[in-house]
Amino acid sequence: MASTRNDSAVTVRDVAQLAGVSPGTVSKALNGQGQLREETRQRVQEAAEKLRFRPNQVARSLAEGRTYTVGMLTSDSFGRFTLPLMEGIEDSLGAGKVSTLLCDGRGDPLRERHYLAELLNRRVDGIVVTGRRPDERRSVGQLPIPVVYVLGRSDDPEDLTVTNDDEQGARLAVEHLVAHGRTRLAYVSGPAHHLSTQLRRQGFEAAAAAAGMTVSDLLTGHWSEAWGRTAAGLLARRTSGLVDGVVCGSDQIARGLTDGLREAGVRVPQDVSVVGFDNWDVMVQAARPPLTTVDPKLVRLGRLSASRLLAAIDGAELGRGVVAQPCELVIRESSVPT
Amino acid sequence: MASTRNDSAVTVRDVAQLAGVSPGTVSKALNGQGQLREETRQRVQEAAEKLRFRPNQVARSLAEGRTYTVGMLTSDSFGRFTLPLMEGIEDSLGAGKVSTLLCDGRGDPLRERHYLAELLNRRVDGIVVTGRRPDERRSVGQLPIPVVYVLGRSDDPEDLTVTNDDEQGARLAVEHLVAHGRTRLAYVSGPAHHLSTQLRRQGFEAAAAAAGMTVSDLLTGHWSEAWGRTAAGLLARRTSGLVDGVVCGSDQIARGLTDGLREAGVRVPQDVSVVGFDNWDVMVQAARPPLTTVDPKLVRLGRLSASRLLAAIDGAELGRGVVAQPCELVIRESSVPT
Repeated sequence: MASTRNDSAVTVRDVAQLAGVSPGTVSKALNGQGQLREETRQRVQEAAEKLRFRPNQVARSLAEGRTYTVGMLTSDSFGRFTLPLMEGIEDSLGAGKVSTLLCDGRGDPLRERHYLAELLNRRVDGIVVTGRRPDERRSVGQLPIPVVYVLGRSDDPEDLTVTNDDEQGARLAVEHLVAHGRTRLAYVSGPAHHLSTQLRRQGFEAAAAAAGMTVSDLLTGHWSEAWGRTAAGLLARRTSGLVDGVVCGSDQIARGLTDGLREAGVRVPQDVSVVGFDNWDVMVQAARPPLTTVDPKLVRLGRLSASRLLAAIDGAELGRGVVAQPCELVIRESSVPT
Repeated sequence: MASTRNDSAVTVRDVAQLAGVSPGTVSKALNGQGQLREETRQRVQEAAEKLRFRPNQVARSLAEGRTYTVGMLTSDSFGRFTLPLMEGIEDSLGAGKVSTLLCDGRGDPLRERHYLAELLNRRVDGIVVTGRRPDERRSVGQLPIPVVYVLGRSDDPEDLTVTNDDEQGARLAVEHLVAHGRTRLAYVSGPAHHLSTQLRRQGFEAAAAAAGMTVSDLLTGHWSEAWGRTAAGLLARRTSGLVDGVVCGSDQIARGLTDGLREAGVRVPQDVSVVGFDNWDVMVQAARPPLTTVDPKLVRLGRLSASRLLAAIDGAELGRGVVAQPCELVIRESSVPT
């Protein structure tokens, strides 16, 4: 690998010389602008190909006032939830020939401010701000370019947030349990103050009420397997009759719960159906049995947020408020009694 | 959020007018070039601050022939191993005020070639190529800018690869087991054709031989918990005496093995000590007991590769071949018999 800079890069002048035209004609021919004879345009293109001429994107940016670059500001380090979002964002941007400048704010306001200034200096065309939980985050404020928040919501109602519909996701889980004859339902989730815990609980309660089901327990704790195991112990020791369907706030909780129930002699799904949330491959596959779960479709979320941003860069109205996308239920062995 | 482009951005001309100097003087004052009276320099700076003037990074790039941008090409989608590498790469680049352009090659050669052309068009100063496993990958070839491979090795010995020392990592694990009186050792890892499986086995065998220990089993299978549980069954059914120490090729395998042993009535760590590989928080914490493991220090790896790249961009010799960085052992409950 040569570690020296290439100072002999091919320039417009070289192409012009080979094609026997002026540098201005080369620009016109390659940018498809101005009036040129087809024969001239072709001669320039052949010369450019022969010399492997790469038009200087930097110079083009300066001329067009647009850099075909979007900043991605992750507010919370590169969490597990960030990966699929990034994949989706890159899908959309790549298709639009737009590159992504990566900035990891790590939840540090100073660091974030530094990055924002840097992105503006670099004249990005827009910014995607990703969070790893649906909880609110501070708006980055009014900027001269469009900004889309994805997953984590902006606290400014004038901003646009694209996120998943946690309430609807929990409703799907309850409707699935009810469809399989489950009647005594419990909800086991993460910290009570997290927005995702609250929204999913609302969906859980609404769907249970609509189906006329008994809600036996609403337990909140941590986003961990250990908490799932603890909750399993609490549910298994109930004297007033065992629940027969549990909706969990995450796959980690669902996995711990499943392990805990099995070890307490309760069979999943024969005695109790369990549904997780996230569709996190590592958890849902390793659980015994594999987990039915609610998929927040994060790749799709990333893709959608980036295309909204691209449209806004091209002049469309960005929109405002929270756009909540539907989740999907993925059915595996943990929920269907046999 | 305003979704319109800001066409009234402050220019050098505005700053010049407010400070009562020529645009050329503004440039000199803000870039610290040329000879200017201190009083003039200060007046320009005050005007720039008052108008919130941001020097145009794009124009600066064109003038300097350097974009302060590095491309990061992930060869294998955004895997779990990519996250800590990215964090480290961003650490180094951020400190050097260099931004990261993100390209997800997804293991597709066509996609990768497209991205490489794009990165060169955008005149990046260098490229980091990340892989998620130490296995070899095709070199991106000779480019006019420096390229560093991290984790995944380039197949061209002229390229520079920064990766972790898998052999040394496995040696650490064996030495730890031996120090705690374990004498009958087994190695349980992923697919036999993976370089990481091979290198770790070499380290395992070398350290076991050096300590005069019996190697009872060398098992290769999959990078999964299910394989770990299967391997536990194989080891527990041994008639020729149980192993008392197992080095696993990953934390997932170690976790499955630990579950499988416990369910077969074998106590970890009282009867058998288990050591994992990766220090993947989700696995090591949820395992019962929590896992002792070999940490490949991926953040440090990312940081090191990026600083080597920055040095090369600044003119230092890039170097070549494979630079293998030491792993560290993290001790938890799964390995120390009480």
